[in-house]
Amino acid sequence: MRNYIKADEWNIIEEGFDPHLNKISESIFSLGNGRMGQRANFEETYTGETLPGNYVAGVYYPDKTRVGWWKNGYPEYFAKVLNAANWIGIEVKLDDEILDLATAEVSDFKRVLNMHGGYLERTFTAKLKRGKTLKVKSTRFCSIADDEVGAIRYSITPLNFDGKLTLMTFIDGDVKNQDSNYDEKFWYMVADEISGAGAEAYIKLRTKKTEFEVCTGSNIELYKNAEKLNLNPEAVRKEKFVGQTFSLDIKANEEITLIKIAANLSSENYPKESLLKETKSVIAKASAKGFDTLLKEQAEAWAIKWEESDIIIEGDVSAQQAIRFNIFQLFQTYTGKDDRLNIGPKGFTGEKYGGSTYWDTEAYCVPFYLATARQEVSKNLLVYRHKQLGKAIENAAKLGFKDGAALYPMVTMNGEECHNEWEITFEEIHRNGAIAFAIFNYIRYTGDESYLSDFGLEVLIGIARFWKQRVNWSNDKQQYVMLGVTGPNEYENNVNNNWYTNILATWCMKYATEAAEIVKAQQPEKYNTLLKALSFNQKEFADWADIIEKMYYPQDEKLGIFLQQDGYLDKEQTLVKDLPASERPINQKWSWDRILRSCFIKQADVLQGLYFFEEDYDLDTLKRNFDFYEPRTVHESSLSPCVHSILAAKLNDEARAYEFYLRTARLDLDDYNNDTEDGLHITSMAGTWMSVVEGFAGMRVRDGKLQFNPFLPGKWKSFSFTIGFRGATLKINITESGINIKNNAAVDLEIGIRNQFYKLTGNTEIEVNNTALV
Amino acid sequence: MRNYIKADEWNIIEEGFDPHLNKISESIFSLGNGRMGQRANFEETYTGETLPGNYVAGVYYPDKTRVGWWKNGYPEYFAKVLNAANWIGIEVKLDDEILDLATAEVSDFKRVLNMHGGYLERTFTAKLKRGKTLKVKSTRFCSIADDEVGAIRYSITPLNFDGKLTLMTFIDGDVKNQDSNYDEKFWYMVADEISGAGAEAYIKLRTKKTEFEVCTGSNIELYKNAEKLNLNPEAVRKEKFVGQTFSLDIKANEEITLIKIAANLSSENYPKESLLKETKSVIAKASAKGFDTLLKEQAEAWAIKWEESDIIIEGDVSAQQAIRFNIFQLFQTYTGKDDRLNIGPKGFTGEKYGGSTYWDTEAYCVPFYLATARQEVSKNLLVYRHKQLGKAIENAAKLGFKDGAALYPMVTMNGEECHNEWEITFEEIHRNGAIAFAIFNYIRYTGDESYLSDFGLEVLIGIARFWKQRVNWSNDKQQYVMLGVTGPNEYENNVNNNWYTNILATWCMKYATEAAEIVKAQQPEKYNTLLKALSFNQKEFADWADIIEKMYYPQDEKLGIFLQQDGYLDKEQTLVKDLPASERPINQKWSWDRILRSCFIKQADVLQGLYFFEEDYDLDTLKRNFDFYEPRTVHESSLSPCVHSILAAKLNDEARAYEFYLRTARLDLDDYNNDTEDGLHITSMAGTWMSVVEGFAGMRVRDGKLQFNPFLPGKWKSFSFTIGFRGATLKINITESGINIKNNAAVDLEIGIRNQFYKLTGNTEIEVNNTALV
Repeated sequence: MRNYIKADEWNIIEEGFDPHLNKISESIFSLGNGRMGQRANFEETYTGETLPGNYVAGVYYPDKTRVGWWKNGYPEYFAKVLNAANWIGIEVKLDDEILDLATAEVSDFKRVLNMHGGYLERTFTAKLKRGKTLKVKSTRFCSIADDEVGAIRYSITPLNFDGKLTLMTFIDGDVKNQDSNYDEKFWYMVADEISGAGAEAYIKLRTKKTEFEVCTGSNIELYKNAEKLNLNPEAVRKEKFVGQTFSLDIKANEEITLIKIAANLSSENYPKESLLKETKSVIAKASAKGFDTLLKEQAEAWAIKWEESDIIIEGDVSAQQAIRFNIFQLFQTYTGKDDRLNIGPKGFTGEKYGGSTYWDTEAYCVPFYLATARQEVSKNLLVYRHKQLGKAIENAAKLGFKDGAALYPMVTMNGEECHNEWEITFEEIHRNGAIAFAIFNYIRYTGDESYLSDFGLEVLIGIARFWKQRVNWSNDKQQYVMLGVTGPNEYENNVNNNWYTNILATWCMKYATEAAEIVKAQQPEKYNTLLKALSFNQKEFADWADIIEKMYYPQDEKLGIFLQQDGYLDKEQTLVKDLPASERPINQKWSWDRILRSCFIKQADVLQGLYFFEEDYDLDTLKRNFDFYEPRTVHESSLSPCVHSILAAKLNDEARAYEFYLRTARLDLDDYNNDTEDGLHITSMAGTWMSVVEGFAGMRVRDGKLQFNPFLPGKWKSFSFTIGFRGATLKINITESGINIKNNAAVDLEIGIRNQFYKLTGNTEIEVNNTALV
Repeated sequence: MRNYIKADEWNIIEEGFDPHLNKISESIFSLGNGRMGQRANFEETYTGETLPGNYVAGVYYPDKTRVGWWKNGYPEYFAKVLNAANWIGIEVKLDDEILDLATAEVSDFKRVLNMHGGYLERTFTAKLKRGKTLKVKSTRFCSIADDEVGAIRYSITPLNFDGKLTLMTFIDGDVKNQDSNYDEKFWYMVADEISGAGAEAYIKLRTKKTEFEVCTGSNIELYKNAEKLNLNPEAVRKEKFVGQTFSLDIKANEEITLIKIAANLSSENYPKESLLKETKSVIAKASAKGFDTLLKEQAEAWAIKWEESDIIIEGDVSAQQAIRFNIFQLFQTYTGKDDRLNIGPKGFTGEKYGGSTYWDTEAYCVPFYLATARQEVSKNLLVYRHKQLGKAIENAAKLGFKDGAALYPMVTMNGEECHNEWEITFEEIHRNGAIAFAIFNYIRYTGDESYLSDFGLEVLIGIARFWKQRVNWSNDKQQYVMLGVTGPNEYENNVNNNWYTNILATWCMKYATEAAEIVKAQQPEKYNTLLKALSFNQKEFADWADIIEKMYYPQDEKLGIFLQQDGYLDKEQTLVKDLPASERPINQKWSWDRILRSCFIKQADVLQGLYFFEEDYDLDTLKRNFDFYEPRTVHESSLSPCVHSILAAKLNDEARAYEFYLRTARLDLDDYNNDTEDGLHITSMAGTWMSVVEGFAGMRVRDGKLQFNPFLPGKWKSFSFTIGFRGATLKINITESGINIKNNAAVDLEIGIRNQFYKLTGNTEIEVNNTALV
C-alpha cells in the first residue's frame, strides 16, 4: 500500500523521483492503444531498477512449460506475451557523460499521465556527476487514432553549460522476457535498414517457433528551439539493434528537441514480405503529419472515448481520478477492432499471466464494453471464443471428452490451453460457463439474437455437451453430481459439487436448449444445417433435460444457504474478522493445505452465482448467503470485491457497497497488494466500473429494458456516467436528490427506476426525485 | 514387459547384446554394498545409450526446486542422490581403434550377476571395424566385506592379431545428473594425485552447497597370462578427471589382464583433511590382499547374508531367481550399519526419486529387515527418523503446526522436506503414521520395549501432537474430521476423511498413550525427564482420548464397508475388468482430473489399513472390503500388489494371492512397467518378500509369538525361508504335506501353526502335516 500519486481529476501525477517506486510507476503510467503498448520506461539510459516492457498485441511465444512433476494432459507450452523491440530508446551524452537518472542528482521530477489527452509527460532537472545540469521534458503516446503509431518529443535544455551533446536514438530488439522459463531470448533478427538520409531506422524481427514478424521503424527530426536542424547521423548496428547517433554543440538555455515518430507493424496484419515496405509507408504518413498533429488526433480520439464512457464523480477527487484511470487503462488495452485479440489480466503493462486470456474477459470485461463502446466491441470478444471453438473441442478431447464437447482453456493465446496446475487447468471448468453466460449477457443487453444463429448456438452446444459428460449419476444420491472441480474460489481445489459450478452447468444446458429453440424458430434452415454439421442428436436435449431435472445442489436447510461444496460445513467455522492481521494475506502467510482446509474464501463463488442468476433468488436468500459467506471471504482476488459491492448495494447496505468498491478502485494507484510493479490489474478495473454502474446506480437490463436502483455514496456530491444502450446514448446523473437520465439519441426507451417504469423518448430527459421513490 | 533374462536359480543372465536393452540391463545388473553402488555400465568406452551411475551413500545435492507455480510452503530444494565419480573407466585402444560395443560387431555377449558370490561378470567377443577381433572378460564387485572397496578384473585376449594395446584407466569426476533441474554439474574439484610409481590415482571432489567431499582412488596391476608386468603409465589429467595410460605389444591368444582396485571414502566418515590419506590406506590394504582374496571375502560375506535370509523355492526356477534377486538387491542397498542412511526407492541403481527416503521404508522394508537381519539393522532404520525429529518439528511448523507437533517429510535426505506437489508434500500425511507403526512393528517383532524410552516415545508424542492439531471438530457431524488429505491411494487428492488416514491418526494417539504408560512404568525417571523436555502437558492425553473417542470414520452401512473417503460412493462405479486394455495404465492414458474423479484406485488404502490393524477386524469385514475395493484397484503402484497378496492369502484365496505375488516378483527382471531402465524398484522388492512370508507362509507375530498359516502355491513343490526371531534362527519349510520348522539356536519358542500352538525348544525341529491341521 502506497500513497504517492497526487490526486487530480484528469491526470495521474507523480512528483519527485524515488527509484524504489520506479517499477510501480512504470506500470501505472503505461501507455497503450489496443494494438501495442508499453510500460513507462525512460527514453534515456537508466541503470536503476526497471522492468522493460514493449508489447505488440497478438504476438506471443509458446515458452516450454516448466513443471516440477509432469501430469498427463498438461500442455506442452505456456504462451507468453512477448517483450518486443524497445522503440523509445534515446541515449543522451553530454561530452562524455551519459544521462542516467540512477546516477544523476534529480530534481523537479514530475511524471504526468494525461488521461484526457492520452499522453505521458515527464519533466526533470538532472545534475550530472561533473556538475552539468540540464532540464528534460518528454512527451510520449501510443496513438489510438492510428494504432500502429507512437511518438515522442524529447527536449533537452542545458542550464549551466555549453558543450557537446551526443544523442543516440535506437530500436533495440535484443530484449528478453523476465519470465522466460529457460532464460531464452525469443526473437530472431530478420533485417534492418537505415534510410531517409539516416533519419529513418527499421528493424524486422521474427519470433522463435511462432514465426510472427514485427517490423519496428522510426523517423527522427531535430530542433534547436523552433529551428529544424540538419542531421548527419551515423548508423549504429548491434545484435538485433539499430540506431543513429549524432552530435551537436549546445549552449546553455537553448532547447534541443528530438522528435521520434515510430511504428510497429506485425505479420498478423500484413504479409511478411511487405512488412518493411508497409512500415515505411506508415512512418512516412505519420511523419508528414508531424508530432503536434498526431497528438491532436490522439486527444480527439480520446475525447470520443470519454464522451461514450466517462464517469464523473463530484466531491471526491481521489475517486474521480481512480475511476477514470480504470476506464483509461481498459481502453488502452482493448479497443475491440480485432476479433483475434482479447484482454490479458495485465494488458500491455507487464508480463505476468502471460498476456493471455482468462475468464475475466467474459465475467468482468464484457459488461463494461457492452455499456461503454459500440456493440461490435463486446461482440468481437465473443467471436474470439467462437473462432477458438475447434481448439476448445480438441482441448476437451485431450481430457477424454468426446462427441464435440468443448472445454475452453483456462489461459490461452490462440485457443490452446497454456496453464499447468492440474487443479486449475483440468478442474477450474466454470470458465466454460462464463463464456456461455457472456453470450446470454450480450444478447440480454443488445437484443441481438442474430448472434445465436451466426455464432452463439454452436458454442453453447459445445459447452452443454461438455457439462453433460462432466457430471455423473450418483447411485448413492440418486442425483447427478459433479466431482473434482475448482470453483472461482480457488482456495478450494478438487472439491465435489461446487454449488456455483453445478448451477452454472445446468444453466448452460437450459440456455443452450432455449437458444436452439430461438434459432429453430427464427432461422429453421440455418438451424438444420448447423445441427447436421454438429452431428447433433435430438436425444441430447432429453439428456440435458434429465440432468437439469435431477442435478444435485448442495445446501444446508438449517442455515438456509447454498453450500459452497460438499462438506463445507465440516470445516472449522471461523471468521475473517478473527484472523490476526499478521496472518494476512493468507496466500502469503499460510501453506497451501492450510488455506485449503480452512473455511476462508478467496472470492465467494456462491455469491458469484447469486449475482449471475439473481432473478432466480429472492432477497432473503441472497441475504442469508451473503451474511454467511462474506464474513468468511478474504477477497484475495482482485476480482472479488466488485461482485460483493454490487450485492451489498442490492441488499441496501450502502456502506459496505462503498467499502468493497474502495478495495479495487485504487488497487493499482495505491499499490494495495504490493504487486503493481508487475503490471496493472486491468480486468479487475472493469469490476470497479461494475461496482459504480451496477452497484451504486443499480443498473440492470431485464426484459430488454434498462433499470436503475441508485444510491449516492455518502462521500460523493453526485456521480454521472454515460452508457450506450440499443442505439441510445444515455447520461445518467445521480445526486442526493434523485436521478436524471438524458437520452442523447433519437431512440425511445422505457426505463425502470426502482421498479417504476418511465417512457424516455428520444432526445429528452427524465428526472426522478428520491422523494418520488419508494 | 520383456522376457530376455535367462532363468537360473542363483544367477541373473543376459545372453547376446541388444543395445536397446542396455539401460534396462544397467539397472538389473547393478552392484552395491550399502555404502556405495553403481549401475552396470561398461568399463570400456560406450557411445551407445547408457545412463552412467555411480553413487555414494549419504552424499546428496540440494538441487534448486523447479515448479511451474510456486505455492507457499514448498521447499527450496529437492535433494538428489549424486552421480559420483566413475571409477570403473578403462579405455581400450587397439592400435588406433577404440573398443566400443556401439560400433563393434559383438558376439558371445554374456552378462551374469552372480548373486551367490556377489559379483558381475561380462564376457564378449568384439570384432572392430578393421577386422581385429578380441575376447573380453570383466569381473566386478562392490565389496560388502569392506564397503569402501570395489574391484575389477578386466581381461583382453586378441584372437586374430598381434598389435599394440593402449589402455587408459581413469576416474572421471566430470559427471552430471541426468535429472539436474538446471543442467548444472554438482561437483567441484579439490585435488588429485598420481602416485605409487604411477599405479595409483586419486581424485578428491567436493559437492556444491552441501560440501560433501568424496575421495576416489584406484590402484592398477597388469598381467600377461599369469605374469605380472611392469607398468610405465603416463598420467592423464583433465577437468575433474585423472587417469593413467600405457601401451604394450600383444600377441594373438595371449591374455592381458588389468586389475583395478578402487575405493570411495566420504567426508561423512572421515575428516576432510585426512580423506586422501585414508583413501590411500584403504587402497593399500585392499591391494595387498589382491583381487582374488577380495572376491573370496565377498563370497563369504554374501554366504552369511544368504544363510540368514534366503528363500528356496522348489519347482519354479523363474520364481526362485526372482525372489533371490529381490533379496540380493535389498542387501546391496541397505546393510543397516549406519543409522544416517536409509533406502531410496531406486537404491544405487538410478537417479529417479532422488535416492531419498519415503514411507516405503517403514511400511515395506522394515518387516523384511526385521526377519532377515540382526536387530540393529531395522533399529537403525527407526533411529534414522528419531535423529530427524527436530527437522520434522520444523517441517510441521512451516505448515502452521506448533507445540512440538512433528510432520515427517514425504521425501527426504536429511530430515528436510524435498517434495513439491502440494497434494503430496502437504497432504499425504499418512507417512507420519507409517513411522509410528514401524516403531510398534519393531517392538512387536523384537520385544525390545527399551526402544520406547531410548528413542520411540519422543517420536510418537511428536506424531500424536501433529494429528491432534490436524483434525478439527465438525459442528455439522459432531465428530472430529480430517480434511484435505491424500491417502496411499494417490489417485485421490485433497479428500476429506480418508478412512486409512483417520484410523491411522487415532491409532497413533492410542499407541503414543500406551507407549507413555510403558515408559512411565518401566523407567519413571526417564519418563519424567522426557516429558519435561517436551513441555508435555498431561491434558494432551485427555485431548487425544477425546479425539480417539469421537473420531469420524466414513463407512457405508448398506455395503458393510469402510469408505475410502467422504463421497466415494458418488463416483461412477465401474470395475477395472471393464476398463479396455487400451486405456491402461490409466496414469499414462488419462488426464489427472479424470483419474481423480474415477473410482479407480492406485493402491487400496482401506485394505492397507485392514492389513496394518488386522486384529481389530473380523474376516467377514475384511472380505467385504476386499471384494469391494480390489476390483476397483489398478495396482499402478509397485507397492500395491503385496498387501493384496497377503490379504488374499488370509482370505484363503490362494490363486489370487499367487497372482498378486507374480505382479511384483519379476517386476524389474521382466521390465513389467517399461521403466526398469530408470533403476530398480528396490522398496517394492521388500513387498515381494512379504507376499511369500506373510502371504504364502502366513507368518505373524502376535503376543510375542510367531504364528504361521501356510499354503503352497500350486506351481511350487515346496518353499522354505530363514528368519531370525528373538535370538532364534528358524528354517521354515513348506511342502505339499505340511510345514517343518527347524530351530537352529538354543532358544525355546512357542510357535503357532494355524492357531494351534507348539513348543519348539532350542536346536530341535517341528513338523506339522496338513492332515493334522484343521
